[in-house]
This record gives sequence, structure tokens and C-alpha cells, in this order.
Amino acid sequence: MLNYGGCNIDLLNDMERLEKTFVNAALKAGAEIREVAFHKFAPMGVSGVVIISESHLTIHSFPEHGYASIDVYTCGDIIDPNVAVDFIEEELEAKTTEKLEVPRGMGAIQIKNIKAQ
Amino acid sequence: MLNYGGCNIDLLNDMERLEKTFVNAALKAGAEIREVAFHKFAPMGVSGVVIISESHLTIHSFPEHGYASIDVYTCGDIIDPNVAVDFIEEELEAKTTEKLEVPRGMGAIQIKNIKAQ
Repeated sequence: MLNYGGCNIDLLNDMERLEKTFVNAALKAGAEIREVAFHKFAPMGVSGVVIISESHLTIHSFPEHGYASIDVYTCGDIIDPNVAVDFIEEELEAKTTEKLEVPRGMGAIQIKNIKAQ
Repeated sequence: MLNYGGCNIDLLNDMERLEKTFVNAALKAGAEIREVAFHKFAPMGVSGVVIISESHLTIHSFPEHGYASIDVYTCGDIIDPNVAVDFIEEELEAKTTEKLEVPRGMGAIQIKNIKAQ
């Protein structure tokens, strides 16, 4: 889970470019894309999701605040979510970043580790 | 963020019913639905998202483990995410539940409170 502040405001309101950024982020991380759905709000803001075989990436942007709330959620050891995160971070030109990593298991489920950076 | 174990296995592999469950959960919570995208994996498992004006609901199901990983992510004070959560929980017939609530702000962002139930 990522909260970005001080982002490029025009970009945060550009649905086509955000969609491209998220698709490219998933591909760079080695993910297999299954569904892409983005929505532009009036007067501003974009929400979108890329469903990948390995879970999903989502964004909700608030251009009026230069703020974007992003989830990069992956499972398995094949793809590296950090590759996607680094790519998105650079594209959004974020000045402040907050990351929360939440490992999620299966079966008897424990939240093993929570870290804020 | 919700992790459900011991769910109804047939339901976890029934994309149409999961999609209906998530759309209804959003509507019951008073949300305005913007995009719906669900994907069924071979041999089993479903991933899906309902984008609402107030953010999103997502699911990744693992029928082989009776397990579903769900995010109910909302902003604003108008809709009550717990209404959606309670509805989904009942529909999935989950035997074990793990919830993690992560408030997410805007502007100068702080993770103010993290609680596991």
C-alpha cells in the first residue's frame, strides 16, 4: 500500500497515461495482465485497476491534493512488486512517499509483519 | 483488508455469483458503482474488482484453499464499509476471518492507526 503526495497534478488527472503507467508497471514486474479498468471522475480524479494473474494493482488519484493512493498486491515469488512500485513512483513524480507492506498468507492466516517506511 | 478461510469452495469458484455478491455489497453500503471487472482463472480461482465513486472492493479467491483475500477500500463518511464487509462475509460462509483496518489520509499522510481483529 502506497500513499504518494506532491505528485504531478496533470498526470494524476490523465486517465490514459495512468492506465499506461500501470499496465507498464505490471509488465515490467513480469506480471500477466488479465483485466484493465480505469474510470475518470468529474471534475477530477482517476480510479483504476489492473488485474494480473498474480493479484492486482490499483490507484485512486486526487489531483486537487497532488495525492495518489495505490495498492500493489502480488502473490507468488515469480514477480517482484518492487519493480512495479519503483516504476510508478518515478512516473508520478511523487515528492512524499509512504509505504506499508502487509504479507498475506493462505490457510490459517496470520498477519506476520507490518512495516511502515 | 480481509482474509477469509474455510469458505464455501463452490462459491469461491463461481465468478458470476462473486461478481453479484460484490456489486450487491457495494450497493447495500450506499456506494455508486463505476466499473466492474472480474476474471476467472484456470483451473480455478477468481479475481475481481468493483470500482466505486468512493474507491474500490477487490477479491482474489483460492477455492483450493477455501480462502479469499478481500479489500474493501472506501473514502468519505457517506458510505459504511462495514455494511459491505458484513454482507460479503455472510455470502462467503467464511469460518475464519482476519481483518486489518488501515486509515489512509490525504496531504501530509500518516498511518494513524492499525488494528487487527
